Amino acid sequence: MPIRTDAAYARALDAADPLAKYRARFVMADPDLIYLDGNSLGRLPVAAQQLAVDVVTRQWGQQLIRSWNEGWFDAPARIGAKIAGLIGAQPDEVIVADATSINLFKLAVAALRHRRERRRILTDDLNFPSDLYILQGAIDLLERGHVLRVLQSPDGIHGPVEALATELAGGLADDVALVTLSHTVFKSGYTYDMAAVTRQVHAAGALTLWDLSHSVGAVPIDLNAAGADLAIGCTYKYLNGGPGAPAFLYVRRNLQERLLNPISGWWGQPAPFQFGLDYQPAQGMQRFLTGTAPITSLLMIEPGVDLLLEAGMDALRSKSIQQSEYLIGLWEAWLAPLGYRLNSPRDPAWRGSHISLGHEEGLRIDLALIRDLGVLPDFRSPDNIRLGIAPIYTTYADIHTAAARMQQVVADQLYVRYPAEKPAVT
Amino acid sequence: MPIRTDAAYARALDAADPLAKYRARFVMADPDLIYLDGNSLGRLPVAAQQLAVDVVTRQWGQQLIRSWNEGWFDAPARIGAKIAGLIGAQPDEVIVADATSINLFKLAVAALRHRRERRRILTDDLNFPSDLYILQGAIDLLERGHVLRVLQSPDGIHGPVEALATELAGGLADDVALVTLSHTVFKSGYTYDMAAVTRQVHAAGALTLWDLSHSVGAVPIDLNAAGADLAIGCTYKYLNGGPGAPAFLYVRRNLQERLLNPISGWWGQPAPFQFGLDYQPAQGMQRFLTGTAPITSLLMIEPGVDLLLEAGMDALRSKSIQQSEYLIGLWEAWLAPLGYRLNSPRDPAWRGSHISLGHEEGLRIDLALIRDLGVLPDFRSPDNIRLGIAPIYTTYADIHTAAARMQQVVADQLYVRYPAEKPAVT
Repeated sequence: MPIRTDAAYARALDAADPLAKYRARFVMADPDLIYLDGNSLGRLPVAAQQLAVDVVTRQWGQQLIRSWNEGWFDAPARIGAKIAGLIGAQPDEVIVADATSINLFKLAVAALRHRRERRRILTDDLNFPSDLYILQGAIDLLERGHVLRVLQSPDGIHGPVEALATELAGGLADDVALVTLSHTVFKSGYTYDMAAVTRQVHAAGALTLWDLSHSVGAVPIDLNAAGADLAIGCTYKYLNGGPGAPAFLYVRRNLQERLLNPISGWWGQPAPFQFGLDYQPAQGMQRFLTGTAPITSLLMIEPGVDLLLEAGMDALRSKSIQQSEYLIGLWEAWLAPLGYRLNSPRDPAWRGSHISLGHEEGLRIDLALIRDLGVLPDFRSPDNIRLGIAPIYTTYADIHTAAARMQQVVADQLYVRYPAEKPAVT
Repeated sequence: MPIRTDAAYARALDAADPLAKYRARFVMADPDLIYLDGNSLGRLPVAAQQLAVDVVTRQWGQQLIRSWNEGWFDAPARIGAKIAGLIGAQPDEVIVADATSINLFKLAVAALRHRRERRRILTDDLNFPSDLYILQGAIDLLERGHVLRVLQSPDGIHGPVEALATELAGGLADDVALVTLSHTVFKSGYTYDMAAVTRQVHAAGALTLWDLSHSVGAVPIDLNAAGADLAIGCTYKYLNGGPGAPAFLYVRRNLQERLLNPISGWWGQPAPFQFGLDYQPAQGMQRFLTGTAPITSLLMIEPGVDLLLEAGMDALRSKSIQQSEYLIGLWEAWLAPLGYRLNSPRDPAWRGSHISLGHEEGLRIDLALIRDLGVLPDFRSPDNIRLGIAPIYTTYADIHTAAARMQQVVADQLYVRYPAEKPAVT
């Protein structure tokens, strides 16, 4: 059934939205901006803004070193325990530390050392490239003949589930040490069935390592129910933790004591401030810490996570699907006739919370939207305009306006003033 | 010649201090607090406080993802280039990233792979324990039979320079791959002669890796003049970069292209936003980046570095020595008779900018000073009360008051209400 394309319908959907009240919990400095890049950098929670001021007045400015005992020292575990509530993990299975790529290095290397008789690592070409880079580097470093199999997506949109099943049931299955995938992939938004893949991986005797960066906070995740072994994820996208905020790690509880952090620094010691000369791994997730966390950036993760916990992942997912379907409806009505292609799965069951629309003039359209039309998506080569729906603050009116301007930019050829070259960062 | 112990003399020294004006550039939220822990967490620059507010209003709050092209993307290299001006390096030899321990892992592993025919790593028992932990972990990971020789300080205060010279001239010298030391050691403040040690190390064909955490910003460093190969350092001590602010790495320019970052993430790629599937190391220091930097914590490093550059390292060192000698004079007059021992080198040429005073009741004294007497040093086992002099904001009056209260706390036995147990963090 075609959707209604009038603005009144968008307003009616917003009026009926039970999560609409959460938008006011975010800083809306520019009310005219249509921000659809929450899948890259989430908006600033008002509470995080207040917290930042507290850090540079009271916490650092006045309490100085004493603040370590007043909420800094336990922040990695405290915030990790809250994130656990968003991803179906126990509070003591998640901790916040470092960057996502560094955490992937820690857990991938730990897994390869744990399954040291096996040599194969499986991933796919939809995975975030840094994940592949980290795996390539780990293989070079270990010098034990590991093989990285990058399975090819059949269409650049959907995950290679058949190829993966074949690998995990074939003659080399018992040589697979690790399967590591993005739960939701960064370009198309394709989302794996975590439980089904994990079952296949476990049947082959291998470990799973999920990158949750593009799903956490937008897609319900149940690591425990899936039996997932390892996961990492980013806090600055749908968690709204702030630019480059530290990432998180998850290790299944009964695997924690069997894995070693290869970057074995003092914060992973049971007693970092006793300054013994021999490293001992701490119990539990603390062993996956390394050095001192960037406290200001770390603390600002907490308010965004609190908001998501308050709103509830099921309600957020329900709105995300409704908004995504609404956007796809507008694409069908307005944008497909102008050459926009849907580069995301059509079925919401296989989709995260961003929609990629391809167009042969994608980059120029993206630039015109950002610079002239007040719409902020982002762009991923070769032609993907990514539209991120962050259900905790995105409105139906945002989506309606964005789609209308995407229609206008092509219908009126407003993009032609931009050269088809790539900016440094979008 | 004994120093004058009267308060008027301290006031006179402050009145004559050419750097006194810089104190007003820092937030002094509690004017009665005697803060002598700038060697652990530096004070908050006023400009950093203003910057934090800008980050959570304009930069993140309003500009959102666009800020990546407005000062975030180039911040690691931009701030690194400024730090280079404090440590005798070229602007393109320093970059800011991650935690100190993670950077040590990157550079130590890179050095061991570069000198792969050699098996010995030399360090000492005065080095920061996390550095030893990282080296122990790297050896276990590489599984190539590396040997970590931890040379013993002759007295727990001074570096084992004779033992080091013997190792570097002996029969196993040509098996030494790497010598890694704290330039200024964290307990006693002993400071190595970087140029002399580097000459010995190079004569043996090995590489040097200096941890500058406890010297940068307080002791003039000339990495280029010393011919130093590699260095890492912390930004939250004398650089006043904020709690857990990201650390920095230095690699001698003509070594940069020969070393590989083992944690090979997308930010170390020449074109991270082209999302190719195969890692290529970027040229120069960029290759030692891994993931997205914690921007809020990262940006706040810059104002503190600017202040040090403005004040000048020679002037800061001159004041640091004068203040340290003043403190030692007060120790001789007031504290030595009460059982305080000088656990730092007596000669300022071998000392950084903190003084460790030992006392058999050290921990209890430390607690009484912090909780009852408004003096904030820190404590390092077994008995070291560390008094950090940050010449950019520490006053002679601070030092005079601290010494007077350290006299009082023992003379009047004000510490006896505290049990001799260790707090979690001090």
